[in-house]
Amino acid sequence: MILQLICPDRPGLVSELAGWVANNGGNIRHADHHTDAGAGLFLSRIEWELEGFALSKELIAPEVHALANRLDGKAQLNFSNEITRVAILASKQSHCLLDLLWRSSSGELPMHVPLVIANHLDLEPLCRDFGVEFMYIPITQRNKLRAEEKILDMFSKYKIELAILAKYMQILSPKFLKEFSEVINIHHSFLPAFKGAQPYHRAWDRGVKLIGATAHYVTEDLDDGPIIEQTIANVSHRDEVDDLIRKGRDIERIALARALRFHLRRQVMVYQGRTAIFA
Amino acid sequence: MILQLICPDRPGLVSELAGWVANNGGNIRHADHHTDAGAGLFLSRIEWELEGFALSKELIAPEVHALANRLDGKAQLNFSNEITRVAILASKQSHCLLDLLWRSSSGELPMHVPLVIANHLDLEPLCRDFGVEFMYIPITQRNKLRAEEKILDMFSKYKIELAILAKYMQILSPKFLKEFSEVINIHHSFLPAFKGAQPYHRAWDRGVKLIGATAHYVTEDLDDGPIIEQTIANVSHRDEVDDLIRKGRDIERIALARALRFHLRRQVMVYQGRTAIFA
Amino acid sequence: MILQLICPDRPGLVSELAGWVANNGGNIRHADHHTDAGAGLFLSRIEWELEGFALSKELIAPEVHALANRLDGKAQLNFSNEITRVAILASKQSHCLLDLLWRSSSGELPMHVPLVIANHLDLEPLCRDFGVEFMYIPITQRNKLRAEEKILDMFSKYKIELAILAKYMQILSPKFLKEFSEVINIHHSFLPAFKGAQPYHRAWDRGVKLIGATAHYVTEDLDDGPIIEQTIANVSHRDEVDDLIRKGRDIERIALARALRFHLRRQVMVYQGRTAIFA
Amino acid sequence: MILQLICPDRPGLVSELAGWVANNGGNIRHADHHTDAGAGLFLSRIEWELEGFALSKELIAPEVHALANRLDGKAQLNFSNEITRVAILASKQSHCLLDLLWRSSSGELPMHVPLVIANHLDLEPLCRDFGVEFMYIPITQRNKLRAEEKILDMFSKYKIELAILAKYMQILSPKFLKEFSEVINIHHSFLPAFKGAQPYHRAWDRGVKLIGATAHYVTEDLDDGPIIEQTIANVSHRDEVDDLIRKGRDIERIALARALRFHLRRQVMVYQGRTAIFA
Repeated sequence: MILQLICPDRPGLVSELAGWVANNGGNIRHADHHTDAGAGLFLSRIEWELEGFALSKELIAPEVHALANRLDGKAQLNFSNEITRVAILASKQSHCLLDLLWRSSSGELPMHVPLVIANHLDLEPLCRDFGVEFMYIPITQRNKLRAEEKILDMFSKYKIELAILAKYMQILSPKFLKEFSEVINIHHSFLPAFKGAQPYHRAWDRGVKLIGATAHYVTEDLDDGPIIEQTIANVSHRDEVDDLIRKGRDIERIALARALRFHLRRQVMVYQGRTAIFA
Repeated sequence: MILQLICPDRPGLVSELAGWVANNGGNIRHADHHTDAGAGLFLSRIEWELEGFALSKELIAPEVHALANRLDGKAQLNFSNEITRVAILASKQSHCLLDLLWRSSSGELPMHVPLVIANHLDLEPLCRDFGVEFMYIPITQRNKLRAEEKILDMFSKYKIELAILAKYMQILSPKFLKEFSEVINIHHSFLPAFKGAQPYHRAWDRGVKLIGATAHYVTEDLDDGPIIEQTIANVSHRDEVDDLIRKGRDIERIALARALRFHLRRQVMVYQGRTAIFA
Repeated sequence: MILQLICPDRPGLVSELAGWVANNGGNIRHADHHTDAGAGLFLSRIEWELEGFALSKELIAPEVHALANRLDGKAQLNFSNEITRVAILASKQSHCLLDLLWRSSSGELPMHVPLVIANHLDLEPLCRDFGVEFMYIPITQRNKLRAEEKILDMFSKYKIELAILAKYMQILSPKFLKEFSEVINIHHSFLPAFKGAQPYHRAWDRGVKLIGATAHYVTEDLDDGPIIEQTIANVSHRDEVDDLIRKGRDIERIALARALRFHLRRQVMVYQGRTAIFA
Repeated sequence: MILQLICPDRPGLVSELAGWVANNGGNIRHADHHTDAGAGLFLSRIEWELEGFALSKELIAPEVHALANRLDGKAQLNFSNEITRVAILASKQSHCLLDLLWRSSSGELPMHVPLVIANHLDLEPLCRDFGVEFMYIPITQRNKLRAEEKILDMFSKYKIELAILAKYMQILSPKFLKEFSEVINIHHSFLPAFKGAQPYHRAWDRGVKLIGATAHYVTEDLDDGPIIEQTIANVSHRDEVDDLIRKGRDIERIALARALRFHLRRQVMVYQGRTAIFA
């Protein structure tokens, strides 16, 4: 069982949480905490074995939320072996999609991908190889709202819990995000540098000596969501824009896979536009 | 206050430790734990504020050791703001010594360096600049035992708690280590590659594409002590041995400084020839 | 056209080579040289456009080899847009094979893979997805020589120019290497550390803080061949052997892909057990 | 002798330059070239031994500049063993200054530092230790122009060829840069992210997972000058702003030292707001 709790800081919190687990006969496998002194917040992630735990699965949640309420905080509960249902949104580029499908099928990432949605047809054969449902939903300026509704319908039909923008190259509307907010994006720069379009071209123009990739949660403010993971690669004057794009594909995959792993294992806590990673 | 405890794993340990702190009115600032499943060991590091703590400084230690005994474990206690008394052993090369003296004097590393011992005179002026006592103790094959006794005498006189081999280029005898075992060395390779002498020359001969530096605790088995930190630098066919040595100086300093910081802040726990770093 | 030349160092070599290209009307696109002072050797890689070049393709080779002879050296000639015919040898693990097939099919690596040979059947479906011939050649201690002959027959039939050991987990015999010597392997450690079997297990046992992957040419001396590329990943006490293996998969792919790119673009020159990479 | 030449690209340039050196009896030690296809420019760096060279030192320059004129380009000539005269501008922070003085005195960087200028008195003792002239020139909004004139006077008096802003924390006026343009700065972010003031604070606010340092030539546009080197360090949610500043000190030193080494060895060529590094 994994408990993630965030609440105002005060003495005795670690003891209170660990005590609650212990008093119910739980054996803590991992426990990690962080105090953000500036924000006055306490963050905790505790993972324990359910075997021999006094409370049945049904009773854990109400008890935990009562505890969180008492602490003026918010708690999230997940089973350690949970497999998250994930939809991948893509466009034409295959590298991230292939990487994710492989990591999913090999068991490296604890997720199940029942659905891939793309606004182009290029990636259909790849999905077929992996036996994953592919849905083609083209996006134009005129049909965007309707397309997003269709996507949300599919999410609901497939019981999607997390969406990954794997080089989707489309901006989700605030309306969409209000209805479905668990979305991770991979941006091809070390944010906050080169927000927006064509970061590799702009990185080349600026003559940087390293390029980056940033995996982050999607919010209404483009490329301003909480950062989960960043990775870089060195470049030199010999690298053309195409080389930056090529090198970028490697770090995009790595940053996205690491971020996902953190997310899927419930190691990420988001607060005040930032993340704590209990890795 | 920092408590580091290692004991056989069993349910309830986090709760027991955190509860003990909380019951005495302590506010936990950091708490980090690790279970080595293979070894069946539980490692814990808890840091709490002494202000308002029920036990006086004198009473904490006996209580903690009683607790550790009850758990069949071993505990170490340190004050969070403790400044460790450090002796640096050096030879002719200045880069690590200068770096350490600067990090010490600037307050970056919580240590006090009352004594530098070297088997050559080259570094005396540098020590004078920093106002640090310099002692010249030459080492020959014949006088080695006596020289080591002299070093131990000085350690005792200066109440040294930790010795750093900052490119000392001498091997401490088992006898020395039996009397004074808290010693950190910086080895100029990514161990276990290139143990022993002239690692940069051998790295060049092997044609490696990266070189490394390893900060580790010194044990009787040369270069086999528990590793605290490792850092690498890229090299190419354009690099001669001298370039490896030059690039190595940068990573030696970084690896050593990071390792020391972990050690001095009591973030390192050693067990079964390895370290857990609670950073 | 790409010329790689290695010969004893003496004044005037850059001018002689560049002059030969220019006198025949060639426009040099890249030119890179290296002098290994210790070995007394000069290495040069010159790439020029064939358009407008005075010599026909057939006449270039004899002229270049005459030039090399005059310089007491050895030359290798390749067309810039050449697509190397590559066979991949694999076992059960899919990560490197999938990565290579994708990089090949996406055009990222200038190679054509007509053949995959494995000593297990697991990877057959993956090859089918990519439309690549899969051949199952099991290896036992008794049939090893015959299996190797079969592999060599296939290499010959498919006009293979380079073999990649993508987690093949088998040692090629000296006899094999005598008949086919262009072989690149990916070893899962930062060589020369952890040569041989189970490097991740041994890395864990040693308590290293970083793990590595090394792409190298295969020679008769196991894991002692010329190193092309090395990559590392950080590990901590929280990582079990399985985590090292997982993290290793990412750096194995990266190191192998980088090394291959260097090789396929004729950017690697091998001499005296080491490589110069003209990247 | 080191020749750096930039001119419009056309066939035969490598041969022409190498031929000129060879025809005068020079032995080329290094030769490196780059063609920026987009800009239509050819960049070349050739280093050769003066021993046995047909032209006397006095005659080389006019010949080279005639050659450059013929190619519609610009050439720069330097002796390989030249020691550049460098002034360091600093404020209160010692880490970069100490690092530079040590690298200079140890011979790691081929420069001579006859002068340090600071707008505070804190660093005077450090300069005294190294036997370097320290000049205190405070800067206020009102005296800025006069202070800059004073600095320029000192530069002229001490025959300064290069100025390093080692955490100077002051912006040089366009007027200053017109009179003295060879200036390298270390900025504490991975530019173009976090231009301007307090980059570590802003990096913390944004919740980035890595911080950077950028060494660049100073131009009138703040933090927009040609980038020479960039280095990064990982950060986590456990790092406060002070930790970012501490970690940053290490990467600032490394990035600045590497950039300086490139510059002092004439390995940097600047064009169109970017650099080519012939390393």
